[in-house]
Amino acid sequence: MGSGATDRTGPRPTLDAIARQASVSLATVSKVLNGRAGVSGPTRERVERLLAASGYAQRDRPPEPGSLVELVVEDLASEWSIEIVRGVEAVARAHGYALSLSALGPDHAVGEDWITGVLHRRPAAIVLQFSALTAGRRDQLRARGIPFTVVDPVGDPPADVPVVGATNTAGGAAATRHLLDLGHRRIAAVAGPLDMRCAVDRSAGHRAALAAAGLEARPGSVVVARFSRADGERAARVLLTADPRPTAIVTGNDLQALGVLDAAAAVGLRVPQDLSVVGFDDVAPARWARPALTTVRQPLQEMAAQATRMALRQHGAGDGAADPARVELATSLVVRDSTAAPGVGAEVGPPVRSHPVADRRA
Amino acid sequence: MGSGATDRTGPRPTLDAIARQASVSLATVSKVLNGRAGVSGPTRERVERLLAASGYAQRDRPPEPGSLVELVVEDLASEWSIEIVRGVEAVARAHGYALSLSALGPDHAVGEDWITGVLHRRPAAIVLQFSALTAGRRDQLRARGIPFTVVDPVGDPPADVPVVGATNTAGGAAATRHLLDLGHRRIAAVAGPLDMRCAVDRSAGHRAALAAAGLEARPGSVVVARFSRADGERAARVLLTADPRPTAIVTGNDLQALGVLDAAAAVGLRVPQDLSVVGFDDVAPARWARPALTTVRQPLQEMAAQATRMALRQHGAGDGAADPARVELATSLVVRDSTAAPGVGAEVGPPVRSHPVADRRA
Repeated sequence: MGSGATDRTGPRPTLDAIARQASVSLATVSKVLNGRAGVSGPTRERVERLLAASGYAQRDRPPEPGSLVELVVEDLASEWSIEIVRGVEAVARAHGYALSLSALGPDHAVGEDWITGVLHRRPAAIVLQFSALTAGRRDQLRARGIPFTVVDPVGDPPADVPVVGATNTAGGAAATRHLLDLGHRRIAAVAGPLDMRCAVDRSAGHRAALAAAGLEARPGSVVVARFSRADGERAARVLLTADPRPTAIVTGNDLQALGVLDAAAAVGLRVPQDLSVVGFDDVAPARWARPALTTVRQPLQEMAAQATRMALRQHGAGDGAADPARVELATSLVVRDSTAAPGVGAEVGPPVRSHPVADRRA
Repeated sequence: MGSGATDRTGPRPTLDAIARQASVSLATVSKVLNGRAGVSGPTRERVERLLAASGYAQRDRPPEPGSLVELVVEDLASEWSIEIVRGVEAVARAHGYALSLSALGPDHAVGEDWITGVLHRRPAAIVLQFSALTAGRRDQLRARGIPFTVVDPVGDPPADVPVVGATNTAGGAAATRHLLDLGHRRIAAVAGPLDMRCAVDRSAGHRAALAAAGLEARPGSVVVARFSRADGERAARVLLTADPRPTAIVTGNDLQALGVLDAAAAVGLRVPQDLSVVGFDDVAPARWARPALTTVRQPLQEMAAQATRMALRQHGAGDGAADPARVELATSLVVRDSTAAPGVGAEVGPPVRSHPVADRRA
């Protein structure tokens, strides 16, 4: 289905118009629409294609009982994956599909077993959390008319697959702008791995917000770390040795932010009185943390829901091919208890040129 | 399949012995075992039954590609449900099955759509998080030879379904014993809803451990609350007004314990220096909390894995019926940062008779 149909919001053509287009009777269109017998194969196919293109297929016909939407997630231990399961499951259920869920094994790749199983299960559509499906696998699925989309929280889209992502750069900027608005000027950053697009984008947003306020990232004020609590803590311990020390730290994700809370507690700093901390993603741990994390919400459930709807619309179109498309959903700042105005003694230091690490982004 | 076969650990009969039992040739047994054609229906069924009873079916034959294990959870928003998804998915994948996942809607019941879908999907086995399947639904599944088991974290087992639970009474006792061992004597409790078996059992364990130490629950030292953070906080605020106030609080689950942390922070008590807190379940928020929660681990993933294995063994047996069985996995104390010896001024008060609320348990 073309992206034009995906985005179609206007009125649908009438069944009469479709009958005329297909050169068949209205009764024939009705039979095809309702899955009844008495229509030749080629005619049924022609009518189905027209119905699908006009939005009837996905809106009016419930799926066969027992039909599946397949979701492949990276690792059920990850909070990211869980949010995506929630989003896909809700849309699948709403449309009358059961969810078939696969998690990747320790090798983090789909294997021959998976593709064999999928071709037997014949799900109506597949949603992938990650972008690691090889071109060969994509061709196998396309050849069988099984549409698929990618929900991509890390921002590494393949060239020819519909992807739902998030506005990471804007999110990174919002985090830093929130701190600037509170009066912070010495804002350090724990950045995620620079081989991940989302980390690069969030970090770029941070620097752009500083620049817009006439500030620059100081030398040593950005430390790159992996997306884990332990790595966040290690990075924060380095940042907090700076003199003068930062009054606020933005991070690449919530796990890193939890690590910053750990580091602050370890050196006797109170959050938010002595140090403000902002996470990214708004996964469950951000809400459980004490203080609860101010964070930038990446709408993972909504992204997953959107990817599911896109895949199901392709299914309705009946040919499994799709125009390449990237959809980005908006991130949003969620203010909780880990940020406040800087305390006494948090005067503005002189801005200096940005740190080489942060400059690795082209 | 009988529970004898479920627990069978001895050597299997040879294929020769099965051929003799079924009065067929070894070649015929081999054909049936490998799913090849050329065997009449009744003969195939007889041989399959013997193969299944002897353990061949589930041990040697990989499932058909695309085969499913179905899991029904109450609500994907709950940490309990997520742990169960993880446990079932791991075992399903290890056995070559994909997981088909259904979450109940807002009405918290499986509907006609679900049963229709299941009968079309024909999963090899079904695992249910809850016990709410009606007798009629159970009969429908049994009539189709689809085996099912229940993983039951709340302890409300149906009469005739294999259930995997946890040792809640022992867990409740372990929590209180841990505090007694640290030197606490004024130990209060937030108990879960008394219409939930697990809450009653955990509370009974608490009182038993006190009794074994020559203590009793004081009036007002047990407050019943729902399994939520907000309710845990409200209950703790009541408990902390006692004079002398408790030096430790055990809870019915981790969410309640997080609420106790909130209440302690609100009235300026440090955990664990001024107040020790013990949770129950060891779901993810217990690890994210600050301080990280000492808690009683209910092994939800292992319980789910066990329920999946039990259901798949019934599938191997080929008749979908099972002897009733209840399996309880052990709970275990996980000591983290929310418990310590009572601080100065935490002397033992006189034990008095237990509070009426705690006595509502028969």
